[in-house]
Amino acid sequence: MNPLTSSVFRTETMTVPGGTETIVRGGRDLFPLLPQALHGVRRIGVLGWGPQGSAQAQNLRDSLAGTEVIVSVGLRPGSRSADDARAHGFTEDNGTLGDWLAVAADSDLVILVIADAALAAEHEKIFAVLKPGATIGLSHGFLLGHLQSIGSDFPAGHPVIAVCPKGMGDSVRRLYQQGATVNGAGINASIAVHADPDGHATDRALAWSIGLGSPYTFATTLADEYRSDIVGERAILLGAVHGLVEALYRHFVIAGADPVTAYERSTESITGPIARTISDSGLAAVRAATGDEDLFDRAYSAAYRPARDLVAEIYDEVAEGTELRSVILAEQRLATRPMSPIAGSPMWSHSAQAHARRDSAPTVVDPLTAGLFVATMTAQVDEFAVRGHAWSEIVNESVIEAVDSLLPYMHARDVAYMVDNCSRTARLGTRRWGPRFQAAYEQIALPRVDAPADQALVKQFLDNPAHEALAAAAKLRPTVDISVERPTTT
Amino acid sequence: MNPLTSSVFRTETMTVPGGTETIVRGGRDLFPLLPQALHGVRRIGVLGWGPQGSAQAQNLRDSLAGTEVIVSVGLRPGSRSADDARAHGFTEDNGTLGDWLAVAADSDLVILVIADAALAAEHEKIFAVLKPGATIGLSHGFLLGHLQSIGSDFPAGHPVIAVCPKGMGDSVRRLYQQGATVNGAGINASIAVHADPDGHATDRALAWSIGLGSPYTFATTLADEYRSDIVGERAILLGAVHGLVEALYRHFVIAGADPVTAYERSTESITGPIARTISDSGLAAVRAATGDEDLFDRAYSAAYRPARDLVAEIYDEVAEGTELRSVILAEQRLATRPMSPIAGSPMWSHSAQAHARRDSAPTVVDPLTAGLFVATMTAQVDEFAVRGHAWSEIVNESVIEAVDSLLPYMHARDVAYMVDNCSRTARLGTRRWGPRFQAAYEQIALPRVDAPADQALVKQFLDNPAHEALAAAAKLRPTVDISVERPTTT
Repeated sequence: MNPLTSSVFRTETMTVPGGTETIVRGGRDLFPLLPQALHGVRRIGVLGWGPQGSAQAQNLRDSLAGTEVIVSVGLRPGSRSADDARAHGFTEDNGTLGDWLAVAADSDLVILVIADAALAAEHEKIFAVLKPGATIGLSHGFLLGHLQSIGSDFPAGHPVIAVCPKGMGDSVRRLYQQGATVNGAGINASIAVHADPDGHATDRALAWSIGLGSPYTFATTLADEYRSDIVGERAILLGAVHGLVEALYRHFVIAGADPVTAYERSTESITGPIARTISDSGLAAVRAATGDEDLFDRAYSAAYRPARDLVAEIYDEVAEGTELRSVILAEQRLATRPMSPIAGSPMWSHSAQAHARRDSAPTVVDPLTAGLFVATMTAQVDEFAVRGHAWSEIVNESVIEAVDSLLPYMHARDVAYMVDNCSRTARLGTRRWGPRFQAAYEQIALPRVDAPADQALVKQFLDNPAHEALAAAAKLRPTVDISVERPTTT
Repeated sequence: MNPLTSSVFRTETMTVPGGTETIVRGGRDLFPLLPQALHGVRRIGVLGWGPQGSAQAQNLRDSLAGTEVIVSVGLRPGSRSADDARAHGFTEDNGTLGDWLAVAADSDLVILVIADAALAAEHEKIFAVLKPGATIGLSHGFLLGHLQSIGSDFPAGHPVIAVCPKGMGDSVRRLYQQGATVNGAGINASIAVHADPDGHATDRALAWSIGLGSPYTFATTLADEYRSDIVGERAILLGAVHGLVEALYRHFVIAGADPVTAYERSTESITGPIARTISDSGLAAVRAATGDEDLFDRAYSAAYRPARDLVAEIYDEVAEGTELRSVILAEQRLATRPMSPIAGSPMWSHSAQAHARRDSAPTVVDPLTAGLFVATMTAQVDEFAVRGHAWSEIVNESVIEAVDSLLPYMHARDVAYMVDNCSRTARLGTRRWGPRFQAAYEQIALPRVDAPADQALVKQFLDNPAHEALAAAAKLRPTVDISVERPTTT
């Protein structure tokens, strides 16, 4: 990837396993530098008002308040998001809300945060109206994968950059707001510079990232970002969590637990204390927190290999393009066959009861659940390392995004709600791979938990370089208590 | 597809829904015509000694006994199958066993029944040694899919035909042997003529099919055969059965059944009485046999749509080539990551106990299990019909192969044994799609079984043209009691 250099922001060297990475620390004190770093960008157009679009548009507007840079939102004709955008201050009257192609034509930096399917179908229309030299901005690598799969490319002469927050839009906005009082609260982001015809692409990307409130920004490539992002959401971020709690819930019920207790020992344990322990103290701390290291080790030993095999399979499918082609086929079927929710599974009917018991009977770190979960998370870390990803990307995409963004959200709502309400690409991926993880836990891991732990595997876990990489990343941002609003209606 | 015409065998017209199909009935009385129909083929080389290879080599040799046509078996150097081939009468001494390339070079019809991965890797070597004008014989369409995916083709100047028995090799041999006393016992087959440079390809394919003991032979194309074969094994033939019994076993245990009873109500019910009822009396007869048509109808209504959606998804993936690319990626991973069996799931430990109870407490048709199973089978039938397959192919690939070949085999061993010991392409497919079916039953179908039946859907089932097609196919072969040997060791 390009080394991270900037004429505006100070780069820092972060020690990671086997070397160093260059990163840029964020902070509100840097906001006055943003116009200069944007190098001629006077209008930023954010196309789309989904979770990422609304979070990014608001954060950028707030960060650039008082400067000459204007942030506008562009929506498709008849978009149902228009009222919500207006309610958040983007209006036709003040010139910050308009038709998406008009906004695209009028902007110096066009941030494409519409749905993947729309991006695949409509990118040519957008490219056609861009100003000469306008910067194309992405928030993940999907479009690159799509363009490659159809033998196409980005239009020449335009800088192409990506800023990819390692958290859902909800967290990107919420932690930015917390950052007003806790300087440094926010979601880390990676940047990728894919085309740099005027030499200012990296500074623009850094300005965008810092404007979003990223505590630290690290470099990647669009291809690496695409792979780790798509694989991660199919594995430890969403798919594996879904498969794991489905398997564990039935396992605990069959072993005699009442449904609410089974729900607590599976879902609640992961989304609550396991996520918090990792966020506060790292991966290895979970083992100590179980109170039964032997069971943790046995569960870890039973799950690591099947989980690693599945992550490798997903990685191959994503890297070779078959996963993306499957998503496109699925999108075509959706025209006549609506996607059914996963929330019909019996376990989710106990969600409210389990939530209601939180104060009176706080969930603990279940050792079996923790062993399976941490083994899967470590399997993803190890597979990403073998595939050559930067350590910042590995720990952000495998650990930090999970414990600081997605799992807290799932804790507030539930896993099924999260899956059924995430992006279509992620939702389709979870439905494809969640059942594979469930089957791997049921058929391979759980039947082996009674066998003695594999001490070599446990030692590899305790010595895993991820602990060092995670500690290095943790130094760059404060520990924040992440609050997630309860849904106002259920 | 090519209309079925023959200068040697009598074609017949079979009435199917919406029209007719031309078929050829088999029988031992036709064996004397085989040399003539083979049009110049004096040596048949069967490459491979897997279940299909050993069954086809033996059946063809026995059917051609007393003629000038010689059937030889070709094996790769160091093949572990050589001793078994010798034990079945194919020996170097009598000139019917040899190196695969030598046998290929010496044969007028070369039947390629080596594993798919070997076919993908080695087909060029085989093509290179063929005699001018030698006929290339396939037993399913995999190689066509592979050649298309790499932009290649069959060599010019060679007839290319396929004879595809609609049953596993074990059944192809066993029912042929039964056919010695029950004329007409056997496994139906489809034929496809992909290249016919000398005008005799159809007769050769018919001779091969009749020589295998096929009660009736119908026409298809390599592409249609490939699709229905690969989709079928991922759906009702293997993948869906695996997913269904995993879901039902846990469902019954959670509802309070002891493990052996749960095993009986799920697995035993399907592989025993449900399969037998369909084989003897057709699909609709299962409903009556449950003794609880309301529960059957509710289960059918709950499962049909999610099962149909999954069959459609699999069909898309197979037709568009993504499934095949995934298989090839999986084959590459197998070099370093051995495939774990699915038999580790707790339910399979109760297999022997359930089998032991068969005589004292015969398994009945469980209405819930039957509704889910028949809905899935009908969903595959309906999806194949929409995709334009011939009715003979639809009912053979969705119903007859299941109830007369695979399910009886599973009944003798068990479902997991069957999956873990079938072809790698099928095994990989079952592991990919079985969990998807399991999740669909668990998350969508089973939670909805308490809702009233969808009467329109039930009426569609009762009026389904598949019943007519199945009855037409049944007229062409006798009802035979299919015996499967118990494994001598477990």
